[in-house]
Amino acid sequence: MLKIPKHQVAGHKASDGLLGPLIDDSGRFYKPLQSDERGSKEVAFYTSFSSNAMVPEHIRKFFPIFYGTQLLEASDGSGLCPHIVLQDVVSNLLHPSIMDVKIGSRTWYPQAPEDYIHKCLKKDRETSSLSLGFRISGLQLYGSEESGFWRPGKKVVQNLNADEVRVVLRKFVSSYSSADPNFVPDCAFASSVYGGSTGILAQLLELKSWFEDQTIYHFNSCSVLIVYEKGSMLKRPSSGAVVKLVDFAHVTEANGVIDHNFLGGLCSLIKMISEILTSPDECRTKNGLQDSDKNCIYIGDSKGE
Amino acid sequence: MLKIPKHQVAGHKASDGLLGPLIDDSGRFYKPLQSDERGSKEVAFYTSFSSNAMVPEHIRKFFPIFYGTQLLEASDGSGLCPHIVLQDVVSNLLHPSIMDVKIGSRTWYPQAPEDYIHKCLKKDRETSSLSLGFRISGLQLYGSEESGFWRPGKKVVQNLNADEVRVVLRKFVSSYSSADPNFVPDCAFASSVYGGSTGILAQLLELKSWFEDQTIYHFNSCSVLIVYEKGSMLKRPSSGAVVKLVDFAHVTEANGVIDHNFLGGLCSLIKMISEILTSPDECRTKNGLQDSDKNCIYIGDSKGE
Repeated sequence: MLKIPKHQVAGHKASDGLLGPLIDDSGRFYKPLQSDERGSKEVAFYTSFSSNAMVPEHIRKFFPIFYGTQLLEASDGSGLCPHIVLQDVVSNLLHPSIMDVKIGSRTWYPQAPEDYIHKCLKKDRETSSLSLGFRISGLQLYGSEESGFWRPGKKVVQNLNADEVRVVLRKFVSSYSSADPNFVPDCAFASSVYGGSTGILAQLLELKSWFEDQTIYHFNSCSVLIVYEKGSMLKRPSSGAVVKLVDFAHVTEANGVIDHNFLGGLCSLIKMISEILTSPDECRTKNGLQDSDKNCIYIGDSKGE
Repeated sequence: MLKIPKHQVAGHKASDGLLGPLIDDSGRFYKPLQSDERGSKEVAFYTSFSSNAMVPEHIRKFFPIFYGTQLLEASDGSGLCPHIVLQDVVSNLLHPSIMDVKIGSRTWYPQAPEDYIHKCLKKDRETSSLSLGFRISGLQLYGSEESGFWRPGKKVVQNLNADEVRVVLRKFVSSYSSADPNFVPDCAFASSVYGGSTGILAQLLELKSWFEDQTIYHFNSCSVLIVYEKGSMLKRPSSGAVVKLVDFAHVTEANGVIDHNFLGGLCSLIKMISEILTSPDECRTKNGLQDSDKNCIYIGDSKGE
């Protein structure tokens, strides 16, 4: 029984009869191959990666498990279509908060066609990519049973400026139960989600060490997906927070050079998350409630795109 | 008594009656302020940096000492002109080998005018900046008393591709005494120049730690100058190798974000230098003498530009 994923925050969606990914009950995620070469390039990456002996075992946990490809009835009813079969990284979570962070101040790859380069460069300059070295490209926050999920529109999320991204990184680990996403972040879950020996920061640092050394792939336009079970956080202090790399349609060969573009952006994200851990109260104490409209921004409605 | 510096490898030069920097016998370097805003921006940086209490003491050694500005007779005879007075970082060296490495896959700053951005972007794509995260923008190798210095032309150096840069990083720490710069690098001085607790690699790693944390400046289009006394190397194993950051005409405020562009490029340079230390024989054993023409490239003549 294939169905439309509930917790997809970025990328093409299968809702409204469009072509998009599907999931099943056994924890698998079926991503339709895009008709241009992106689909086949992503399959090529997963195939290469899953058999590459130079990838250390401890790094594989940062990638969705790859189960091959499969012909499936497409979600848009257009008939049989090849799908990449992957691990559904949120399958065991009931109330996940999810952030899709596209890493790199440059999202284009050097060999790309000129018009593609210009389109990407324009977007990198308009979003926080150029200034921060990354941009948030999808977001879902779980509030409470009453407020449910808050998933701001795609354009709103992508066009957050540097200061707004900073606030979102705080909101991501804050308690909030009202239906108003324009709340002042309290960073109540910062230490249990971002911190600790198995938290997000530790995972990002492990990934960073690999990126300082690996000269196999350049992860152009890839995202770091940050996921945790917000529902359980409200009851017990174990977040099960995980980092996964996703979206490999533009991965290129490294030719013996590290992926300095990804590494730089990753270090910038690491620095911002570190700052939240060292001063979790900054947003509350510095800005206060009185000017929360300015500093603790409202970034869309809960109806999705 | 002001004179034209002998060992300048990049930037505007005072030879042939042009406007360029001068040095004196007390170890000072006089850099004329460029007539556009670049000169005043560089003065502004040095002024800010030298009084900024947030810069750790151990990081200051990576910057030339700043002695203020001074009106001097310009080297092109155009009359009195303001000069930035700096430490001459090669004043105590007789036979320095010098490499000017412009760091960052992007050499433009986000606030720059469009035509400047396009000019820089074009150059970043044509040179190794985009692929490696840095490009060599000046080079001087000392061979021996017979062969003297070899300083390839500016265009030749800047247009080295990734593989050629790799070879130059090896040649920089190799012995060679013939007048032919198309020699096979033996990396004879790799461990004493790049390696060791005070060598180039250790210094670059110290700089890297700071860049992972500092959110004061973005060092757009800056260079890392790598210098050592090649003459003394031929007699005793102490290189006095130093790393200095130079060229601050395009430094901008960090706005609380790390300089991910500089950091990424720096990590790429660090990785390449590490590889030379772990496999100093690679160029010789892999390529051999027989195909040195292909792999161990000739990059210009010893007559300079």
